[in-house]
Amino acid sequence: MKPRLLTPGPTPVPEETLLDLAKPVVFHRTPEFRQALAEVLADLQYVFQTKNLVLPLTSSGTGGLEAAVANCIPPGKKAICLIAGRFGERWRGLCKAFGIEPIAVTVPYGEAVAPEQLAKALADHPDAVAVCCTLSETSTGVAHDVAAFGRLVAPTPALLLVDSISGLGAMECRTDDWHIDVNITGSQKALMLPPGLAFLSVSAKAWAAIEANTQARVFYFDLKKARAALQTSDTPYTPAHTLIMALRHSLKRIRAEGIENVWARQALHARAARAGFQAMGLKLFAARPADGLTVVRMPEGIDSTTLLGKLEKRYGLKLANGQDQLKGKIIRLAHMGYIDQFDILAALAGVELVLREMGHPVDPGVGVAAAQRVFAEAVSAAGGRS
Amino acid sequence: MKPRLLTPGPTPVPEETLLDLAKPVVFHRTPEFRQALAEVLADLQYVFQTKNLVLPLTSSGTGGLEAAVANCIPPGKKAICLIAGRFGERWRGLCKAFGIEPIAVTVPYGEAVAPEQLAKALADHPDAVAVCCTLSETSTGVAHDVAAFGRLVAPTPALLLVDSISGLGAMECRTDDWHIDVNITGSQKALMLPPGLAFLSVSAKAWAAIEANTQARVFYFDLKKARAALQTSDTPYTPAHTLIMALRHSLKRIRAEGIENVWARQALHARAARAGFQAMGLKLFAARPADGLTVVRMPEGIDSTTLLGKLEKRYGLKLANGQDQLKGKIIRLAHMGYIDQFDILAALAGVELVLREMGHPVDPGVGVAAAQRVFAEAVSAAGGRS
Repeated sequence: MKPRLLTPGPTPVPEETLLDLAKPVVFHRTPEFRQALAEVLADLQYVFQTKNLVLPLTSSGTGGLEAAVANCIPPGKKAICLIAGRFGERWRGLCKAFGIEPIAVTVPYGEAVAPEQLAKALADHPDAVAVCCTLSETSTGVAHDVAAFGRLVAPTPALLLVDSISGLGAMECRTDDWHIDVNITGSQKALMLPPGLAFLSVSAKAWAAIEANTQARVFYFDLKKARAALQTSDTPYTPAHTLIMALRHSLKRIRAEGIENVWARQALHARAARAGFQAMGLKLFAARPADGLTVVRMPEGIDSTTLLGKLEKRYGLKLANGQDQLKGKIIRLAHMGYIDQFDILAALAGVELVLREMGHPVDPGVGVAAAQRVFAEAVSAAGGRS
Repeated sequence: MKPRLLTPGPTPVPEETLLDLAKPVVFHRTPEFRQALAEVLADLQYVFQTKNLVLPLTSSGTGGLEAAVANCIPPGKKAICLIAGRFGERWRGLCKAFGIEPIAVTVPYGEAVAPEQLAKALADHPDAVAVCCTLSETSTGVAHDVAAFGRLVAPTPALLLVDSISGLGAMECRTDDWHIDVNITGSQKALMLPPGLAFLSVSAKAWAAIEANTQARVFYFDLKKARAALQTSDTPYTPAHTLIMALRHSLKRIRAEGIENVWARQALHARAARAGFQAMGLKLFAARPADGLTVVRMPEGIDSTTLLGKLEKRYGLKLANGQDQLKGKIIRLAHMGYIDQFDILAALAGVELVLREMGHPVDPGVGVAAAQRVFAEAVSAAGGRS
């Protein structure tokens, strides 16, 4: 059986990157590694679409979120948290842990926080010093209109902190044009690496807040120290340097394709996946779906845990379940990073077969064909360009 | 040219571990990964010589030190920091960052803090809630008598927090017998992995302090959350799971050899390295040398930066320089983990050749032969056992 990893993190890692990880380990305080780190951070500026410094952290994405909160927001201050799922909740949890008052703006899981809700929260809480949101809410597959959030936050003194962990490189995200002050991602999503690294961009407005925050209790995640070390392309503490070196391969791929083409391809993947699932009679879970993953509800009487177990056991297809209260109710298919259109067809084909096996009526090929029509239209629209 | 990595972190990674890192990435919330994590943590209990829970963190070793400080020591309290080098200083920096008053007990770099100094500090500061020290001070090559520290700290209410990052698995360290409350290591030293993971053991006394510490500002490094997740062999946030899976190979090596044999072998390496350098007329930098690395002073007129550059360029031998004020004055040779006795001979041979080239008189072979005599004596003492 041939395994296919189709979860929204970790995602499959290209072969040349994996082989790079098998190379003998080298020392990291060398001109060669400094050069590699500088290259990676410059390429990440391109992926982030920012002129601001991008900082590396050796941690999961959550470490990057903590760095944003702990450095930028003084204890005792208010932060507006836009919560549409488990990762929006993580912002609230972080604020509480760091003595910050979270102002929660919540919507039911599956929906997106509307810009109007943020406008009202900003009007109600002019003393909020930050707005925390997700670009792509990995737990529900919802995308937020971060460009609109940015237009609302930019004229205020508040900072816009964005968890782009499953969004960056998986869908349009223009850090500078959208006025994102701190944009955070992880290595194991659209950057096509194993987990272990987080990256964040920091705007001038955010640096001013960080410098003014004399009460920050930070050491490992001290962004000022990270910035100082980067002046000589170094890190304050031993980085996961083998991952940083391997990241050069993924970034070369993105550079070669062009970030706007990456976004377009992943948007196409998302349209195809949605068409495929809907043709099978499944309903989308996300009211405003992201491009990096597609989340669908199970039909009456079908438990997603059972379905996913069969998908993996019979066909090697590894999709993700819902988390917490959504477990058993939804399935999450990733189509970001090193997952291509034929992997999506494989996933749809597997879901068709397992749904039939579980007694849910699906005409064989209906989902696959619907997705394939989306791909075919894209080829036609591009004038048959291969 | 054949490169040899002989720095005190990162250290060489065994081939089977590197190949494991090149395997296709799998999902981490599965019974298979939980099983791997449980195995790794059980084997680490053996390496730590502890019955206490060992917790994994996705960070460098410094993240593990921060977890110890931030969870165990309430802000406003006093911690005695035993400082014999850059990594002792790191404890002091961490305490300051977290609003803890560091009581510094310092010795000149190259010396070890004596147990009597700790006894006096404990007597002078009966209100200190923690004692922070290094087992092996990587910046100077000094080993501390942590067993003696433990005998002094155990009867007091204070916790003993030990940075064993370049010591654990590289020299005798008996976490429970020595009364170490929190013992911290990193993946890139004697555990023979790339950097990216930290591990720490936590005693019952430390858990009681953590539970009583209601003012801890922790989220990513929240040890209570890590403990709760481990009840189902899980982690609160996405771990660097490919490293954890690869760690099984290193731990199998250590298990197969037996931890006391590993310690004995590395102590032998250290004796041989010291004998070799001393036979060349070089002076040891560490008054009480560790087993994982050997640090020697440069003779008059020899700059270690030049020597190390030539060693690498001519012979592929990568040793480490001194850090900060010691740069140019010392060289640091690692002999822990996947570095064997013949690698040590190679390093000594290279240093002999470069010293001669730089005009320092050394009889060719004098260092190599001295080290080889130490190895030969060990074979004789073992009765010719291979």
